[in-house]
Amino acid sequence: MRMSHLYAPTLRETPAEAEVVSHQLMLRAGMLRKAAGGVYTYLPLAWRVLKKIEQIVREEMDAKGGQELLMPIVQPAEMWLETGRWHVYGDEMFRLKDRHDRNFCLGPTHEEMITTLVRSDVRSYRQLPLLLYQIQNKYRDEIRPRFGLMRGREFIMKDLYSFDRDEAGLSESYSKMYDAYSRVFSRCGLTFRAVEADAGAIGGSGTHEFMVIADSGEAAIVYCTNCDYAANVEKAELKPLPAASETPQELAVVDTPAMKSIADLTAFLGVTADKTIKAIAYRTEKETVLALVRGDHEVNEIKLKNSLNCLALELAGDKELAAIGSVAGFIGPVGLKNVTVVADASVMNLSNAVCGANQTDKHYIHVNPGRDFTPAIVTDLRLITENDPCPHCDAAIKTARGIEVGQVFKLHTKYSTALKATYLDENGKEQPMVMGCYGIGVSRTMAAAIEQHNDEHGIIWPVAIAPYHAVVVPISTKDQAQVALAEQVYAALQAAQVETVLDDRNERPGVKFKDADLIGYPLKITVGPKAVNEDTIEVKIRRTGEVLYYPQEGFAAKIKELLATL
Amino acid sequence: MRMSHLYAPTLRETPAEAEVVSHQLMLRAGMLRKAAGGVYTYLPLAWRVLKKIEQIVREEMDAKGGQELLMPIVQPAEMWLETGRWHVYGDEMFRLKDRHDRNFCLGPTHEEMITTLVRSDVRSYRQLPLLLYQIQNKYRDEIRPRFGLMRGREFIMKDLYSFDRDEAGLSESYSKMYDAYSRVFSRCGLTFRAVEADAGAIGGSGTHEFMVIADSGEAAIVYCTNCDYAANVEKAELKPLPAASETPQELAVVDTPAMKSIADLTAFLGVTADKTIKAIAYRTEKETVLALVRGDHEVNEIKLKNSLNCLALELAGDKELAAIGSVAGFIGPVGLKNVTVVADASVMNLSNAVCGANQTDKHYIHVNPGRDFTPAIVTDLRLITENDPCPHCDAAIKTARGIEVGQVFKLHTKYSTALKATYLDENGKEQPMVMGCYGIGVSRTMAAAIEQHNDEHGIIWPVAIAPYHAVVVPISTKDQAQVALAEQVYAALQAAQVETVLDDRNERPGVKFKDADLIGYPLKITVGPKAVNEDTIEVKIRRTGEVLYYPQEGFAAKIKELLATL
Repeated sequence: MRMSHLYAPTLRETPAEAEVVSHQLMLRAGMLRKAAGGVYTYLPLAWRVLKKIEQIVREEMDAKGGQELLMPIVQPAEMWLETGRWHVYGDEMFRLKDRHDRNFCLGPTHEEMITTLVRSDVRSYRQLPLLLYQIQNKYRDEIRPRFGLMRGREFIMKDLYSFDRDEAGLSESYSKMYDAYSRVFSRCGLTFRAVEADAGAIGGSGTHEFMVIADSGEAAIVYCTNCDYAANVEKAELKPLPAASETPQELAVVDTPAMKSIADLTAFLGVTADKTIKAIAYRTEKETVLALVRGDHEVNEIKLKNSLNCLALELAGDKELAAIGSVAGFIGPVGLKNVTVVADASVMNLSNAVCGANQTDKHYIHVNPGRDFTPAIVTDLRLITENDPCPHCDAAIKTARGIEVGQVFKLHTKYSTALKATYLDENGKEQPMVMGCYGIGVSRTMAAAIEQHNDEHGIIWPVAIAPYHAVVVPISTKDQAQVALAEQVYAALQAAQVETVLDDRNERPGVKFKDADLIGYPLKITVGPKAVNEDTIEVKIRRTGEVLYYPQEGFAAKIKELLATL
Repeated sequence: MRMSHLYAPTLRETPAEAEVVSHQLMLRAGMLRKAAGGVYTYLPLAWRVLKKIEQIVREEMDAKGGQELLMPIVQPAEMWLETGRWHVYGDEMFRLKDRHDRNFCLGPTHEEMITTLVRSDVRSYRQLPLLLYQIQNKYRDEIRPRFGLMRGREFIMKDLYSFDRDEAGLSESYSKMYDAYSRVFSRCGLTFRAVEADAGAIGGSGTHEFMVIADSGEAAIVYCTNCDYAANVEKAELKPLPAASETPQELAVVDTPAMKSIADLTAFLGVTADKTIKAIAYRTEKETVLALVRGDHEVNEIKLKNSLNCLALELAGDKELAAIGSVAGFIGPVGLKNVTVVADASVMNLSNAVCGANQTDKHYIHVNPGRDFTPAIVTDLRLITENDPCPHCDAAIKTARGIEVGQVFKLHTKYSTALKATYLDENGKEQPMVMGCYGIGVSRTMAAAIEQHNDEHGIIWPVAIAPYHAVVVPISTKDQAQVALAEQVYAALQAAQVETVLDDRNERPGVKFKDADLIGYPLKITVGPKAVNEDTIEVKIRRTGEVLYYPQEGFAAKIKELLATL
């Protein structure tokens, strides 16, 4: 491809709209343009990357017995009403009516569609297992689309659905997909971790998220420095921490003027945070709730939601606080009414602790859980910290930020039961199919790759998903010898199937070098006076900055070898 | 691929919903399933065919300098309001609102989107020409979706848009695409014709349709038996036919009791149809119109619409007829009021003709155009017939039915002017880009291929787009020697990159043979006793029924050779 012809309109300035580096660099490198909030056009360079990611995904799905098909984007409402998700999805679902006033949505996912399909064509255990997948646009009407491809409203997904006879079959399919996903992200050149995750609204249990490690990631993860354990912090399971057992003293109220934060309070009272109780009031769709963790811990809202089995969870306001007999900044569990108290198990081990006294500028001291208050629910309610031991092996853990690019899910019989997708087993008995679903954010993977692989000059593509492998830059397009040599090198590389761009534009070398670094070709091949006069062509490796020199003879073969090592 | 594993649920019966053979066969061969009216899931066999067609399209677009990108399906209304097409599209456009109540549509086409994109990134003549394309779903809310993939509401299109500096550039781009399209459909193994066509509502002038010849085609085309001329019948240009010049006689009214049709009338009066005037009344959005052609001709409604420059055209009812002073079955142009008369030029050459007298059971005789009535418009208004000579060379013509699978269009500056997509020319002067658009119905091409290539047993795939090249059928899966040999043959074919299905199902040979013919693999390879005992493997060519025998040694190479000849 000649740069003079390539539709990659690079920008000198970073557009103000772009908050994260992948978005900034894709706009600047002429890869991406916005059509509406969260809706983008992929320009040719981006489309090449996406096709490479898709192909890697496809090969790995096929290797596990996956069969590709293509389902509709426009889906009739009926099947969503059958599972009840027509209402559950709320405003996040793009809905439309056809000319006959029938209801449709733009598929945010395809469980309903694939299950409806399979139920009508699969009758016998002999037809199972089935692994069916597609790669296509998905739709989610995010309230605040942002971060470019990270949180779009129209995005490219691979979604595979497994249908098995039983739980053992599902475990096998799940494990195949877990392996396939690991291979996909490895082949894409990404550093990632598969972490235990929360099943969330999609339903089912047993799920891992595949996280590309990047400081800009929206997700916090923990992983063990010793064993294989890794989890989304929201999911990480924790045992209750012990605490020194003291002789219970009498409950007392103390003045704590304007001491609303744990830091202020502990400094004022001369106690450590792990001797205090942090109480946070929430309202759910059903009730007001008080969550308790130790002062040095944070409430894990996912765990709180799961323990309450609620859908909505928001911080309570002054009105709700007044209704339960409390006041902001001085909330505590002692003596409250009309509230469901949920306590982290570590709280229950405390003796003579400190907590809010539900009056302005007052705290209780010598609070003893069980004696002074009794929670409705005691559970694992807190977020893991770097101070916690590994839940599996007790070794030290670390935290990191991650971008979720894939998720594997055990759905069990949630959808097959709702949609009556059954088969006849060996004994002629009707059984629900046992399902799993497995998603990869294809467009998000491209963005995540950039988040993980960039520097101040631009993108640094992993070779496997680079839009092109190399760029050939003649320093002067006025020097006939340079131009001729650049053309020869370009032709030789193309013949050797090295995907190459020839920057034949009549621009200053500085402009071409800057664009080369911005677009992030793995190799930059410079054809200048030295190449012409000394038969030594300069090759710069984008990632390391290393510079190598090769003669023209056998050049393309050398480049192929070099690419294979990157 | 093993048939026991392949998700291709074949059906014995033809589903009642399917009216055309491609729809019937795709349902029966387990390729297609309906999700909603005009909305389908492509099962794995169909998806393989579609990917092959897409790849052929891609290669030919790239060979002409096309660059692939991907635009959004969900498009904001603003750009459609700028060109005025938001309202023009009417009920055919799927519309939706996002959660913020902003208007969007599902793209029926992408002129607005691509022009908006290019106008913001292209500034200079040096960036032109540009040929940009995508392959993706398009949406059209057809009032009556039918014929399976022939007239769907969600379908796969390739759309390419060309941007040139001037008309000469557009002609070059147009001609490149014309060539590319010819290559695409040839490579797909289809018999087709490129025909001159009407530009229709999309705008612009200069257009060809690519028609796959099939009796079931919705379009009627004509082509010359001598020269290259071919056209949609709606478009075919016609010169006025001469008529014998007679001495004008006096206009007279005659009784023609219940003679409402031309056939009845000519028999009753003893004249030939080419001496009568057929008059048809229409209403447009603006007025009532009377179209006149000779009694042996048919009105070409496309030409009528173009001559009136109207959008809507419907047959007039009794009320409209009464308002202009006429009555159904006896309409004629003499003495009418409040009606725009449009006459075919051949009508004007008639002398002493017959036409309706605007009274029940009455006709005029001795009608002389010009003397007895004067049309507002005289033009080429009729449909071509097999009796007409070629408009280019006067040789005999033939008619055929065709399925439109592609169209190339000169848009000129229609969209660039509306959307202000300009560039600076060599003199720094602002110029509108000159555009073309070029579509291929990818999913429709698959259906058209089946319409053209089938027999009573099923599909007969052209090799280039067959889902698999061959099926290997062991006659008895209980005979270990047959199974072992079938496996060897299957392995050898796969190693030789012959795309092969092994029908390893424990089914009767009749069932497997029927499915093989239905799915339409180009080659069926039978492994039975003869193959095992005599080292001679039977190969049947699906298209011709020809049977060949090869030994196991070198079998795969022979099959590759054979496929290359098909």
